Amino acid sequence: MCEANAYIIKGEEEELFLAKVDKIIPHEDGLMLESIFGQKKYIKGKIIEMALLDHKIIIEEMETLK
Amino acid sequence: MCEANAYIIKGEEEELFLAKVDKIIPHEDGLMLESIFGQKKYIKGKIIEMALLDHKIIIEEMETLK
Repeated sequence: MCEANAYIIKGEEEELFLAKVDKIIPHEDGLMLESIFGQKKYIKGKIIEMALLDHKIIIEEMETLK
Repeated sequence: MCEANAYIIKGEEEELFLAKVDKIIPHEDGLMLESIFGQKKYIKGKIIEMALLDHKIIIEEMETLK
């Protein structure tokens, strides 16, 4: 399965936001993520990097944007 | 392997932009994509949707943005 885990970057730490993400749909100022189980989570933020072979999505939350 | 293919949406058509994408790094007004072979391509545009289980990245080019 080719889902990825979505992490929020907090300083030098990465905090798991949603595991096993299938779909990512960017919106005006945020992202809608949907897991392979159909769980949906919205976050105000943007994608910093995606590394599919590493199954990794790195998100920066809006509050921390400069 | 969990790479995805990146398509540009043109009306109702989807045109392959880069196959077997590993990394996606959003920039100010565009996206840097890198394939599993290390090929890098930049496009002025934004992600409309990613469906990882379908190995699919849908991109809208800046020129077509309203």
